[in-house]
Amino acid sequence: MSHDAPLTPKDVEARSRAMEVLRSKFIALVDDVMAGRVPTLVIRKRTLTNTLYDDVNGLLRLGEGTLKRSFLNVNEAKKFMQTLLMAGIIYEALKNNEYPTIRDLYYRGKHTIKYRDLVSRKTGEENSWEEQKESDSVIRDLEVFIDMLREDMLILSKEKGKIVGNMRIKSGGDVIDLSKMGHGAYSIEPTPDLIEFLDYDAEYVLVIEKDAVFQQLHRIGYWKTNRVLLVTSAGQPDRATRRFVRRLNEELGLPVYILSDCDPYGWYIYSVFKVGSITLSYESERLATPKARFLGVMMSDIYGSPKLNKKPYLTESERSNYIIKASERDRDRADELENYKWFQTPRWKVEIEIFREKRSKLEIEALTSKGLKFLADTYLPSKIEVGDWIA
Amino acid sequence: MSHDAPLTPKDVEARSRAMEVLRSKFIALVDDVMAGRVPTLVIRKRTLTNTLYDDVNGLLRLGEGTLKRSFLNVNEAKKFMQTLLMAGIIYEALKNNEYPTIRDLYYRGKHTIKYRDLVSRKTGEENSWEEQKESDSVIRDLEVFIDMLREDMLILSKEKGKIVGNMRIKSGGDVIDLSKMGHGAYSIEPTPDLIEFLDYDAEYVLVIEKDAVFQQLHRIGYWKTNRVLLVTSAGQPDRATRRFVRRLNEELGLPVYILSDCDPYGWYIYSVFKVGSITLSYESERLATPKARFLGVMMSDIYGSPKLNKKPYLTESERSNYIIKASERDRDRADELENYKWFQTPRWKVEIEIFREKRSKLEIEALTSKGLKFLADTYLPSKIEVGDWIA
Repeated sequence: MSHDAPLTPKDVEARSRAMEVLRSKFIALVDDVMAGRVPTLVIRKRTLTNTLYDDVNGLLRLGEGTLKRSFLNVNEAKKFMQTLLMAGIIYEALKNNEYPTIRDLYYRGKHTIKYRDLVSRKTGEENSWEEQKESDSVIRDLEVFIDMLREDMLILSKEKGKIVGNMRIKSGGDVIDLSKMGHGAYSIEPTPDLIEFLDYDAEYVLVIEKDAVFQQLHRIGYWKTNRVLLVTSAGQPDRATRRFVRRLNEELGLPVYILSDCDPYGWYIYSVFKVGSITLSYESERLATPKARFLGVMMSDIYGSPKLNKKPYLTESERSNYIIKASERDRDRADELENYKWFQTPRWKVEIEIFREKRSKLEIEALTSKGLKFLADTYLPSKIEVGDWIA
Repeated sequence: MSHDAPLTPKDVEARSRAMEVLRSKFIALVDDVMAGRVPTLVIRKRTLTNTLYDDVNGLLRLGEGTLKRSFLNVNEAKKFMQTLLMAGIIYEALKNNEYPTIRDLYYRGKHTIKYRDLVSRKTGEENSWEEQKESDSVIRDLEVFIDMLREDMLILSKEKGKIVGNMRIKSGGDVIDLSKMGHGAYSIEPTPDLIEFLDYDAEYVLVIEKDAVFQQLHRIGYWKTNRVLLVTSAGQPDRATRRFVRRLNEELGLPVYILSDCDPYGWYIYSVFKVGSITLSYESERLATPKARFLGVMMSDIYGSPKLNKKPYLTESERSNYIIKASERDRDRADELENYKWFQTPRWKVEIEIFREKRSKLEIEALTSKGLKFLADTYLPSKIEVGDWIA
């Protein structure tokens, strides 16, 4: 009944690496104390103003701004202690071969501290943290401080990403053939760095926002006939899916194409894959795929574009049946995207201009409604062949 | 490049069965016309008042109430035509070896009909349907009318359910070993009736509401040491997960245990697995698992119960850290559940009473926070061993 099952070598290795990094980063505090200094943490700031777009590498990252958390400063002491509390809990979990979630870490650290004020002699109570928002923020600080993602500390999470295609991987001691999943798919694990790529026969990776469209392309064997690794993020991508896609691009050199709905929300999903998430820019160095290509659906696919000398993929009557009016929120979101440097290219300008002019949007499903064969045999291969994607 | 890949025999069989049923159900309309009768559809009503709890079989089902849709009745003609339009689109998709989604079917059928009023001579326009809500409702009518689920008509959908365990299945021509998924999992297909169960070595099925808890139990090999098929619905279960679980119970005779959060929302998830969804009761005959057992988390697991002579699994101090105050909505939901016959048992009364008294709830994660080993080595096996579940 006991669950002291032997861990895989990759798991053991990941654990001792994370423990070593935690140790080496926090040992400095002991040195502080021994030397009579006030123990102080110096952490890079995770603020918007300290978030920079790095054009050389094409991704978001944290700037050089730091903040310090000193044990003996009354404004910093609580955060200081929260950070140490969290580091301790994670270290224990690593040592005990556990796999906590961020929710677990919140619960494990939540407790009430009773104190007596030295001056007023009054007693009081203070919670280590009140809400998960607070403990999550501490985990993020820790990730920045030790320069390691939570996945590297074997912290698990809900996982939505799926893959099928001609590829064999190794995970948890098993060899998994991603071409033998039947009508189902392989659900990507929450710690994608533990995956070993064995061999593959594919020319590119196609990442599809919508799970139902992924299911359809899978069902007709699109990945077989086109030699492609088919991935779905099932909406806004989680961290593991982003890391997995990045590894396919970086380690195997496979081009990555993103297929999302034709609206500012879909463009944002592409943007998260490509440059990272704006509020969590410290993750981008590991999770972003700067070379990801936006394949569609483009406004110019719907309406064509004289500027691009491009004919539309949809007829007038198809447009009238498939198009949805853009909402106020869509237009606000487009305004936002226009401010981002990586959308300020001539090619994106054309797309955003058509969006502004037509005030309409379109879902990927409109293309499968025109015909799954149209999507699979015409739209996707011809766009890839002629290079109709945005770098 | 073409996608006329040979279909699996199971797929071909499913297609011709669905086409045959559609044909035989709608041919009656032709007979009506030939005999000079007004073509009329008679469909069982999908209303709340026509939804009954069948205590013999322990599931919800539609009653005998019907409605009719006649071609020559001005109030019924639109629905009549919508039903025929949808049936025609689905028939075509089956014939063309396609796999539409319900979103596709909405788009495919959406068009504008121009007409001229015979009396006033005025012209007008009318859309086949405006929103997907409308076309979805037509699909449901069709499911009831032909007594076949949309999955049987090869209509695909987004799919969240996952499984791991000692079992081999066959799907889409592939043999899949669900015990060789590494740290990932097998993502259940949207048409679970096409799955063939080959062999298995398991004593029961454990269905977990939370994906992250599934990931944790999977990671420590819970399914290996306990000989269990581990399933997650990742929240409110979708139809394919429900059908798959039902098949595991019905065809293999495996007991099914549901583990959800300890709150009225978690109890409702259990209820959907067990008796079906209240608004879509016509599905229950195929999707519900009347023998599903509620394993936990129970209010009596948290607080114990003198009535049940049961000690709590949590200490006083664990309770104070893990428990969440129930919201107004939780309490409203509890009121609702109390009205359902299948919650009106002495055992459920105890649970609901504790909920009312304590006005608190608890997540499964509280148990993994107490310790994943506690959940895996103590809580789950001891509850199953002593039979501390609700039938």
